Parts: sequence; C-alpha cells; structure tokens
Amino acid sequence: MEIHNKEIKAIQGYYPEELSHCYGCGKLNEHGHQIKSYWDGDETVAHFIPKPYHIAIPGYVYGGLIASIIDCHGTGTAALASYKADGREPGTLPPFRFVTASLQVDYLKPTPLGVELELRGKVIEIKGRKVLSEITVSANEDICVRGKVLAVQMPENLIKKNISDK
Amino acid sequence: MEIHNKEIKAIQGYYPEELSHCYGCGKLNEHGHQIKSYWDGDETVAHFIPKPYHIAIPGYVYGGLIASIIDCHGTGTAALASYKADGREPGTLPPFRFVTASLQVDYLKPTPLGVELELRGKVIEIKGRKVLSEITVSANEDICVRGKVLAVQMPENLIKKNISDK
Repeated sequence: MEIHNKEIKAIQGYYPEELSHCYGCGKLNEHGHQIKSYWDGDETVAHFIPKPYHIAIPGYVYGGLIASIIDCHGTGTAALASYKADGREPGTLPPFRFVTASLQVDYLKPTPLGVELELRGKVIEIKGRKVLSEITVSANEDICVRGKVLAVQMPENLIKKNISDK
Repeated sequence: MEIHNKEIKAIQGYYPEELSHCYGCGKLNEHGHQIKSYWDGDETVAHFIPKPYHIAIPGYVYGGLIASIIDCHGTGTAALASYKADGREPGTLPPFRFVTASLQVDYLKPTPLGVELELRGKVIEIKGRKVLSEITVSANEDICVRGKVLAVQMPENLIKKNISDK
C-alpha cells in the first residue's frame, strides 16, 4: 500500500525542525507518539499501535490517547490540505504548520487494545487560516471513535519566536 | 488548602482495583498521569505538572495531553457528583465508574509549559447514567483551555468482565 511506502514522507517530516518537538507528532520528540499522516486518495491516513500501558480498562484503549492522535492527525491533515489547496508540494516555503483551536471527540464504542489503529481524515472546509477536518479511528476495520478538529495556522509570532530562539 | 491535605483521598483512590489501570488516572498505571480529582467546595479540582517532553512547540503544552487530563478529570468529576447525588460516601458500594462518551475541548490560548496546571470542574447536569461537566484548565490562574465531558456509567458487562477476569 502507498501509505507504507517509505519513499513517501509523512507531512510531519516536512515540519520545520523548530516546530517538530510535538509530543503527538514531532519527529524530534523521542518520548512522543510520532504520528505520521499521509494522503491516501482524497483522504488522509495514519496508523498507530498503542502501547500496553495506554489502557482505559483492561482490553481497551485509553480515550485520552485517542483524542491526542486525532488532534495530531487533524493538524497534519490541515497542513496536507493547505499545501494541496495552494498548489504546492509539502516542504516548499513558507511552511504550513497548524495548531488546534478546538477538538470534538465522540467515543462510539470501546476501542480494543493490542491492534493497530487506523486514523482516516476528510477535509470538511478550508476557510482563511482555518481547516476543519473529520477524523475516524478504526480497529479491525470497525470505526470506534469519530472526531472533528478545527485547526488554525500557527500565529506568525509563535513561528518567528521559535525560529529566532534556535 | 484542603486539596493538598493527604488525609483526603482523591476519587480515583476509591476506584475498584480492576478499574484502576487507566493511563490518565489509574493509581496502578506507573506509566500514566495519575490525575487525582477532589471536591473543592462546589467544584472539583485536580493539579498536574506536564513533563518537559509534553510539548507542542517550545514553551507550550501539547494539546493532546490537555485533552487527556480534561477527560480523566471529567470522569472523576462524574463519579464524585454521582456519590454526592446518591447521598453516599466514595468507596461505598456499588462503585461509580465512568467512561467518556464525548469530549469537547476549546483551546483559548497557548498553555505555558513548566508550571502547574489547575483543572476545575463544574457539574452541569446529571441525567440517568450520564453526567455532563465543564472543565477549565488554568496556568498561573489564567484559563487557557475549556472542555466539556459527557461521561456515562461504565456498562455493567465491562465491570463484571474485569472483576471476573481478576
């Protein structure tokens, strides 16, 4: 599958190094989840295997972890969609880097622990500096959780501060 | 302050052992956040100091972590409120143990990293097996994030399964 092709870099691989420390998706955060988001047709996709200790009650995944990976796949989806809408390849300048303005998560059923989770994202709307996306989380091809992420382009002063701090 | 009095046990200290493995708030999860929720007057309160690696961008806390601790303080608030509504002390049987049905998080401003965060919960509604609460997250007494947690009492079959698995 395209998404497992290591030649294709995830959007997080294109984030500027100064903005790649995120616990959820930063490639430079060795303690973090390092979520990686790709295009798969018109949707975005990411995969994640929770650790045994990412537990809610025995047998099921902790909902806070699921909210976290939805959050990061949502900001990744926003960046992917913005490059596409701008007609640019990821990695071209200026970089698109989003933060979350709001997050809605509906837990439809318990998510089983011990299997790979698939996150799929659909872009609902791009409006100015904001991107709204819908993210599903599936286990064994069964949707367990639905989320919505309203992502907003990171304020310029935060980007500049971090780059000048380097 | 009452909330720092070690004589008073957090609601999570009363969860049955079989249901105390949660990554966010289980006292038996050594990898987890071990959130502890208490009454403070008519509100509930919890405190948490993010680790340096719980970072979004340098200087600020990762939003997914904030969603996680809101989630657990929301289920803790639901349990506290249910014992109170039932006129029972925490620890009396049967236990109240909630899971999250839905979570809404609004990030009002970046949350600074390196300071203790305070979560405060208000019960909005108790209706049957569901409890809706509103949770704020403050840093330096400044509200950075607002959340709403719809918690629902854990289905009996999940509780029984876990207790019989012991």
